[in-house]
Amino acid sequence: MPRLQLFFIYSLDAKSVGVKLGILGLGTVGTGTVQLLQDTAGRHPLLKEIEIYRVGVRSLSKPRQVELSTGVVTTDLEAIVNDPEIDIIVEVMGGLEPARTLILTAIKNGKHVVTANKAAISRFGAEIFTAANQAGVYVMLEAAVGGGIPVIQPLKQSLSVNRIHGITGIVNGTTNYILTRMQTEGSDFNDVLADAQRLGYAEADPTADIDGLDAADKIAILASLGFDGRINLQDVYCEGIRQVSKTDISYAAKLGFVIKLLAIAKHQTSDHSQLSVRVHPTLVPQTHPLASINGVYNAILVEGEPIGQVMFFGPGAGAGATASAVCSDILNLVATLKTNTPKSNPLLACRHENYLQITPISELVTRFYARFLTKDQPSVIGKLGTCFGKYGVSLESVVQTGFQAQLAEIVVVTHDVREGDFRQALAEIETLEAIDSIPSILRVI
Amino acid sequence: MPRLQLFFIYSLDAKSVGVKLGILGLGTVGTGTVQLLQDTAGRHPLLKEIEIYRVGVRSLSKPRQVELSTGVVTTDLEAIVNDPEIDIIVEVMGGLEPARTLILTAIKNGKHVVTANKAAISRFGAEIFTAANQAGVYVMLEAAVGGGIPVIQPLKQSLSVNRIHGITGIVNGTTNYILTRMQTEGSDFNDVLADAQRLGYAEADPTADIDGLDAADKIAILASLGFDGRINLQDVYCEGIRQVSKTDISYAAKLGFVIKLLAIAKHQTSDHSQLSVRVHPTLVPQTHPLASINGVYNAILVEGEPIGQVMFFGPGAGAGATASAVCSDILNLVATLKTNTPKSNPLLACRHENYLQITPISELVTRFYARFLTKDQPSVIGKLGTCFGKYGVSLESVVQTGFQAQLAEIVVVTHDVREGDFRQALAEIETLEAIDSIPSILRVI
Repeated sequence: MPRLQLFFIYSLDAKSVGVKLGILGLGTVGTGTVQLLQDTAGRHPLLKEIEIYRVGVRSLSKPRQVELSTGVVTTDLEAIVNDPEIDIIVEVMGGLEPARTLILTAIKNGKHVVTANKAAISRFGAEIFTAANQAGVYVMLEAAVGGGIPVIQPLKQSLSVNRIHGITGIVNGTTNYILTRMQTEGSDFNDVLADAQRLGYAEADPTADIDGLDAADKIAILASLGFDGRINLQDVYCEGIRQVSKTDISYAAKLGFVIKLLAIAKHQTSDHSQLSVRVHPTLVPQTHPLASINGVYNAILVEGEPIGQVMFFGPGAGAGATASAVCSDILNLVATLKTNTPKSNPLLACRHENYLQITPISELVTRFYARFLTKDQPSVIGKLGTCFGKYGVSLESVVQTGFQAQLAEIVVVTHDVREGDFRQALAEIETLEAIDSIPSILRVI
Repeated sequence: MPRLQLFFIYSLDAKSVGVKLGILGLGTVGTGTVQLLQDTAGRHPLLKEIEIYRVGVRSLSKPRQVELSTGVVTTDLEAIVNDPEIDIIVEVMGGLEPARTLILTAIKNGKHVVTANKAAISRFGAEIFTAANQAGVYVMLEAAVGGGIPVIQPLKQSLSVNRIHGITGIVNGTTNYILTRMQTEGSDFNDVLADAQRLGYAEADPTADIDGLDAADKIAILASLGFDGRINLQDVYCEGIRQVSKTDISYAAKLGFVIKLLAIAKHQTSDHSQLSVRVHPTLVPQTHPLASINGVYNAILVEGEPIGQVMFFGPGAGAGATASAVCSDILNLVATLKTNTPKSNPLLACRHENYLQITPISELVTRFYARFLTKDQPSVIGKLGTCFGKYGVSLESVVQTGFQAQLAEIVVVTHDVREGDFRQALAEIETLEAIDSIPSILRVI
């Protein structure tokens, strides 16, 4: 590396008062961000050099929890991303459009971007990062995954000296809250969901959370960083928690497991040729680090070589926690702007151009949990075993208990099996006369 | 901020092959670091630009697990820190001297430093960082605390937008391993220690671990980053685990606690005027996030506003994990060198000059656990209560069980009390005729 460098820098630095922000959106996260930036005592001193220059909102008449000077708040969001005075755009409005267009315009105008928008990044990341690299600006997204938990930056920086083997996360607080309550109270999914909606832990339309779509957005982002390439969101297998019953939670507990909605990105083979990225309810051994993550908390477990396992735990949502992540990205950009750096920092920029090949779910190799309702025939376990054996499915444990309306209940946990083979075995088992139904099929980690 | 800047850069960049490292020490961590840097496929591409230029060792004849070209390995450590070709010094030799002198010489020579040396940093940090700031170089220390867990960088960067209220860690793997085994096996401290030494989890001279000195070094470093000032190591109260008995572990369990060696830096009052920094065995509620951190694992819980609680968990030691941290620091420096930045990055540099005022342990306000052996007198609990009351100590729970050689055993847990008051009460209680002895006094979180 060069030991001798001469720099001649002409900057307009002397007159400038600070870094100017344009904030798009003044909802929960936007309000939290403004509150943090307006109350800097006891925080990093660099925050004092930030000026909230414009805040874009949908309605000027809506009552706000923060005070902003006249002229700062505007409904003209396009004017903000086109304002030459503004250095950094903070996109905390959410949704796909106009967020995407505003981000792209800001980038085209040479502005750095901080966003909390997992939906837009997981769908338009390729377009956004390509534009950012061309314009020589940074797009920062710590708040997009895990709320306040610092996980994006560690993955991009500290942990990137490792070969990442897997990223496994509880990244959706709503579903974790529901599953935790179902577990501790023995309640039904629908009852807990209704109560969670009443308490504000679940949205009126809970689809994005409950069906795993939010978690899929997040694991796509984490996988992209951990495995060094772009992810096509359509390749992420996604299954929500609507089908998880209190019966299964109770069987799982007897077998030494808890049920969690996990978002998983993992190399399936040691030669790293097969990467599986998926979201589904999962039986997690009670001794697993993720098993004790309860309520609205999030946790992300990263496995790599040589580090082994590290886990990041914290609040996955909320105004304050998310504002912490947004402001940490702003701080990082301000620090970078302060260095007057002529070249972009390779640890802040996005460096992926290739798309990652994702293994289809039928090729996944995993353990399964399945619950069968069977007619009360003495040979039914034998028949199940024969059918499983035919497709190479071997069983780790079989539990036969309980009767519901003349039906026996059989629960099996398999050894590792290719999902396609397991599904074929199930299809054949379903045709057996002794089988009434297969109410649950869940994967086991 | 300036929108217009002109840079004229004359650098010798074109000819340079990469960033040159001088590594001091080729023990466990040094070997792990060299192995990682020699095997870069699948890791961050920037690692390929690093050249292991010199490695300083004590003995050339010792067999090594890594191959290095002729001329790279040398016993002349001073020549390494004075070599003008070298950009970064990686100090992984440990110990106080000559590590301190070599680091200071490297800094004086304009070299950036990566160190895993918690003992040197906690003692000579002020001197080292002052020198580094004067020379305009960075001193990076991710590996000094928590092995591979990224915690130094999050504290310096992401989390620094928060007002930090407390940092609480299990930062010594040896003592956590011993306490975990005492707990699960019901064994005595001395037996587990002997076995841990046999298995290589504890050193032949276990003092630094067992007596909490290693944890004190680490919490001094964490506190300095979290609370933004220098720490005088002498101000850190330190108590090890030699006195923790299986009896206390068993009583704690009955009361809903586990016993952990915690390293704590915490604002005691809401006005942040009193900062307490300390290491001691602690009763931790079984539901606390740190209660389930077992074996050689480390975890650091950070509490702040507005983030709430975040926790970092992972392997606290070991060649691979520590090498991951060392290399993440090297990567960060390489990235910074690549940007040809004319100004130092305020998020990488150390910004503390003031010393933090640490509250003496007598001023600590905490709950206590105490175990008394008393003569079998009917009024003994009453006498204890009277004496505690006199000094403002109120009791949360009192358990009287068991008899050992005609003595009754009484265990109390207090409400929050000023430690000085509690000690005065104990001094008076010790003089009571009914009291045989006070075998254990532990703090409760």
